Amino acid sequence: MIDVALFGAGRIGRIHAGNLARQTGVALKYVVDVNAAAASELSEKYGAKVASAEQVFGDGAIKAVLIGSSTDTHADLIQRAAAAGKAIFCEKPVDLSLSRARECAAAVARVRVTCMIGFQRRFDPTFAAVKQRLDAGEIGEPEMLVVTSRDPGAPPLDYVKVSGGIFKDMLIHDFDIFRWILGDEAASLYATASCLTDPAIAKAGDADSTAVTIRTKKGRLAQINTSRRAAYGYDQRFEILGSKGMLQADNHRPTEVVAATAASVSRDKPEPFFLERYAKAYADEMAHFFEALAKGSAVRTTIEDGVKALELAEAATTSWRENRIVEL
Amino acid sequence: MIDVALFGAGRIGRIHAGNLARQTGVALKYVVDVNAAAASELSEKYGAKVASAEQVFGDGAIKAVLIGSSTDTHADLIQRAAAAGKAIFCEKPVDLSLSRARECAAAVARVRVTCMIGFQRRFDPTFAAVKQRLDAGEIGEPEMLVVTSRDPGAPPLDYVKVSGGIFKDMLIHDFDIFRWILGDEAASLYATASCLTDPAIAKAGDADSTAVTIRTKKGRLAQINTSRRAAYGYDQRFEILGSKGMLQADNHRPTEVVAATAASVSRDKPEPFFLERYAKAYADEMAHFFEALAKGSAVRTTIEDGVKALELAEAATTSWRENRIVEL
Amino acid sequence: MIDVALFGAGRIGRIHAGNLARQTGVALKYVVDVNAAAASELSEKYGAKVASAEQVFGDGAIKAVLIGSSTDTHADLIQRAAAAGKAIFCEKPVDLSLSRARECAAAVARVRVTCMIGFQRRFDPTFAAVKQRLDAGEIGEPEMLVVTSRDPGAPPLDYVKVSGGIFKDMLIHDFDIFRWILGDEAASLYATASCLTDPAIAKAGDADSTAVTIRTKKGRLAQINTSRRAAYGYDQRFEILGSKGMLQADNHRPTEVVAATAASVSRDKPEPFFLERYAKAYADEMAHFFEALAKGSAVRTTIEDGVKALELAEAATTSWRENRIVEL
Amino acid sequence: MIDVALFGAGRIGRIHAGNLARQTGVALKYVVDVNAAAASELSEKYGAKVASAEQVFGDGAIKAVLIGSSTDTHADLIQRAAAAGKAIFCEKPVDLSLSRARECAAAVARVRVTCMIGFQRRFDPTFAAVKQRLDAGEIGEPEMLVVTSRDPGAPPLDYVKVSGGIFKDMLIHDFDIFRWILGDEAASLYATASCLTDPAIAKAGDADSTAVTIRTKKGRLAQINTSRRAAYGYDQRFEILGSKGMLQADNHRPTEVVAATAASVSRDKPEPFFLERYAKAYADEMAHFFEALAKGSAVRTTIEDGVKALELAEAATTSWRENRIVEL
Repeated sequence: MIDVALFGAGRIGRIHAGNLARQTGVALKYVVDVNAAAASELSEKYGAKVASAEQVFGDGAIKAVLIGSSTDTHADLIQRAAAAGKAIFCEKPVDLSLSRARECAAAVARVRVTCMIGFQRRFDPTFAAVKQRLDAGEIGEPEMLVVTSRDPGAPPLDYVKVSGGIFKDMLIHDFDIFRWILGDEAASLYATASCLTDPAIAKAGDADSTAVTIRTKKGRLAQINTSRRAAYGYDQRFEILGSKGMLQADNHRPTEVVAATAASVSRDKPEPFFLERYAKAYADEMAHFFEALAKGSAVRTTIEDGVKALELAEAATTSWRENRIVEL
Repeated sequence: MIDVALFGAGRIGRIHAGNLARQTGVALKYVVDVNAAAASELSEKYGAKVASAEQVFGDGAIKAVLIGSSTDTHADLIQRAAAAGKAIFCEKPVDLSLSRARECAAAVARVRVTCMIGFQRRFDPTFAAVKQRLDAGEIGEPEMLVVTSRDPGAPPLDYVKVSGGIFKDMLIHDFDIFRWILGDEAASLYATASCLTDPAIAKAGDADSTAVTIRTKKGRLAQINTSRRAAYGYDQRFEILGSKGMLQADNHRPTEVVAATAASVSRDKPEPFFLERYAKAYADEMAHFFEALAKGSAVRTTIEDGVKALELAEAATTSWRENRIVEL
Repeated sequence: MIDVALFGAGRIGRIHAGNLARQTGVALKYVVDVNAAAASELSEKYGAKVASAEQVFGDGAIKAVLIGSSTDTHADLIQRAAAAGKAIFCEKPVDLSLSRARECAAAVARVRVTCMIGFQRRFDPTFAAVKQRLDAGEIGEPEMLVVTSRDPGAPPLDYVKVSGGIFKDMLIHDFDIFRWILGDEAASLYATASCLTDPAIAKAGDADSTAVTIRTKKGRLAQINTSRRAAYGYDQRFEILGSKGMLQADNHRPTEVVAATAASVSRDKPEPFFLERYAKAYADEMAHFFEALAKGSAVRTTIEDGVKALELAEAATTSWRENRIVEL
Repeated sequence: MIDVALFGAGRIGRIHAGNLARQTGVALKYVVDVNAAAASELSEKYGAKVASAEQVFGDGAIKAVLIGSSTDTHADLIQRAAAAGKAIFCEKPVDLSLSRARECAAAVARVRVTCMIGFQRRFDPTFAAVKQRLDAGEIGEPEMLVVTSRDPGAPPLDYVKVSGGIFKDMLIHDFDIFRWILGDEAASLYATASCLTDPAIAKAGDADSTAVTIRTKKGRLAQINTSRRAAYGYDQRFEILGSKGMLQADNHRPTEVVAATAASVSRDKPEPFFLERYAKAYADEMAHFFEALAKGSAVRTTIEDGVKALELAEAATTSWRENRIVEL
């Protein structure tokens, strides 16, 4: 039995707790959250106890920690968990500071604990199938990647202000998709952005619409377009052009109803947001984490992946703010 | 140069005149219509003359006649054209009377003139591709056919009254599709029907919604569902299940626009009606007719096909009216 | 806490056990199966005990039984459970004998226990959405229903022989869909069938391909086409034409990958079979059953629904065997 | 009757001649081509005469010229036609030299002759419908545009060498789409490119894969991705995200066949190349040109549009070659 502590009893923490409960040989022992009520409710639901970080790191029986608390706590918790020799699953980003994130990666590397970053999209059935078929050679050599990533609506302004900006907060997932799908690294990056949905976002120093172009070391091209607003739901698509064809990852829909009326022939909008779209991905990444622990095998999304994606997010922020192409 | 006479300057006559104008080596010489204004307008447009049937059949230079006049004129014109040794293209049905249609077929057979019935659907790019791929063995042996055939709206009541009923007027096309696609003949047929869109149709002794089942001599099964009303346009689909898969003929759309809004993700409705949906089919059947004349080759939709489809339409009418299974 | 006994530790029994484990306030206490190993394995997995039917019915703490054992055991178990005052969830069909099924319904009615029949398709997200939107008036009055229901492959011949025939075994679900979607009852029914996939099925007195037409009391028309074989997977579609449009329930796919190659533009096949396609439906029907027990509310798929669907299956069998239209 | 001269009897010249033949009140009088055989064949087919440029410009009866000859002849012919007071329809680009193109525009402006540039995509039914629906406000204010434009295969190397490079030869259409759809002008542009399909293209100093980002004066963002090779056909799509939704222009297919087999569920590839995909667009732009002449109204794609698209193509070439963001 692997005893686990969960940091963060919010939206994502509850998802992880639910998925953790479905793993065999795994038990949620502690829930840690500054919101005592949330910690209490979640721990009761799964038969765990409310605890402090000190208790978690002081309990040798705890083999793994899940970090789903706010971004500003990630680095500290990773370092303490690494120091305590505990396996780590941490939500993205590792930290808003690239140097701090690199310190975390170094700390993890020193003690060689398992550390998985929650790039759950890699576990989405559609995305994973594209990757698998691409690797199997179905479309030959990859050449161009186009990623479309749009949220249904902007987060609260208070969150925007501490988010690290759209590139670190939102596109970090898309940068990871880029690296994972193409299996290649960025050589240069150009990003531009606008504030088109809400002037308050611009006032907070951030943007809500971005266009990023990456040229890889192998000369492949990638374009990412994002928006904080899509009236039709959560738009999560990408397509990869190869020498022998194209693979597209299309959106998921709640149902397969087709309605033909005097107006049009219509289908459902995409799933509303990430909790629905990536429900299976969240379950599968959790299963993967504990399977890796059980088998002693490597995890698929490492802290190095987290650092690399952050590097791209930082480069994009610089490119946008300084209006220049960034060489990597 | 093949000189041609056209009977009927109405909607379908105009379509044929336009397509005929695009054939090389073919000239429209005469237009015949009881509506003098229509005949005059159409003949002027294409440099032809208004004529009477007598003039047409008395002019040895006329090598072919296109019959697009009202149904009650078809049989007489076919017989006179056959007697005059002219090649014939005639709209469906040959006649509302099966015995009269058989007499026409016999007359044509005696003099061995080319006689093509306007089952234009066989020339539709999608339908033709399904047939070609089925014959190429893509889905193995055919087993079941499902035909969906729905008009956007009922014809005027005056037309309904002289139409011969929904089975002879509307489903005759679907019966031809059935024979053509399966390459098999009906052994038994069951038809039921209802009047669901307009009570006046029932009052006129007809139905507007039908469900037909045919069992073929080889034991294959076919189902046809039709309606005189589809709020979303002209619905023309069929699917054929085979031992190794299924081929479907889907509707055509005016454009490939996709609109994603807060309401749904929608595409265009199907083409509004037969003139739009079968525009290319009408052009291709006309090209086929004149190519057959030029080459002396057989036409793909013969008067025998016209008689066979009518036999099924009559059987369906009987099945419905007498509430019994008809053996063929 | 509601204590439950499960009859049947086979494929469907395991599905129910898994879904039952996710209900709050419900505990699996007993597993009953003639296959001792299966019963033992399943009971261990969920912390239950292997038991006999006698133990189940003799234990007053058992409030509900789930019947997922072989068809020939259903009626007896329903009657014993009803006599013992236990709530019942039973897989279709109630029994292969219509009179026996009616006795069961009468037994249930007498003691007024909750009895739900496992017509899980009503709980499928796509099917349920069609029904909800139809009832909301989105396409006006329903007129025609076309149901396509095809298995990926025939069951083992030993099963075919005791299955009661394709109409009772396979189409019973489609008959339930017909009644549920149209909210109307059959006035007359015509069924024909063939054996096209495997002569051994014909030798066993059964068919593998069917075409059914139903005319309802309100004059609506329905057609059902089924096959025991679809090379492309489990084909579960229906469409309902109404006065203002059409609603279609399309197949579900494992992923939303689109592959464009020199050959074609392709998507995934439908889900392979019922366990995958109806995974959510099985979960939702189980939640519905226990919610109904908790609230004392009515279940959505009653034993009367089971009897009505069986009546249609029997009428279809008669229609096919006697080659006649059956009035209901 | 408007007498017309056609320059260029090649692939596109033949398309225009065929569409011109379908206009009423228009006659093709002359065909000019350095390839005497091609000129002769085409002029015979449509009852025209082979002529020299001198004859064309010296014949006062000629009211309009269609310029479909090689790119290096465009500017000279436009200027001579303008000088002769003839209406002009010219294929893109006006010229490979921006200054020369501007001179042409000035020449046209001075004499105020009608001059239409063949940006046929604006006349494509799908593209035109997107524009019309966007302008009607269906998705609110436009924010982001993503254009995917891929040829099935690279042109011959000899053509590549004189093409002016991929941005002027291929993306000029996409730059026109950008301006037309967004109704906005570029403020800055970044382009990168690679040679991924054939090293000979790189050797010729050109690229075959490009990624362009444009920021408009209103802060809107556009991304264009192109390739000279798409194994699955001619890929011509774009999508526009607006404040209230998204409009997508999807590819056109030859037929609407769906094939479901043990491998997948597949549809036709997109139309193979521009002659098929834009067949209707070519017909409609020709009709528009002659309608404008007949009515004395403005044409929709002016020589100014041709110059503006060329400016963007030049900026993109510069951005790529000098690896810098170009401000416009």
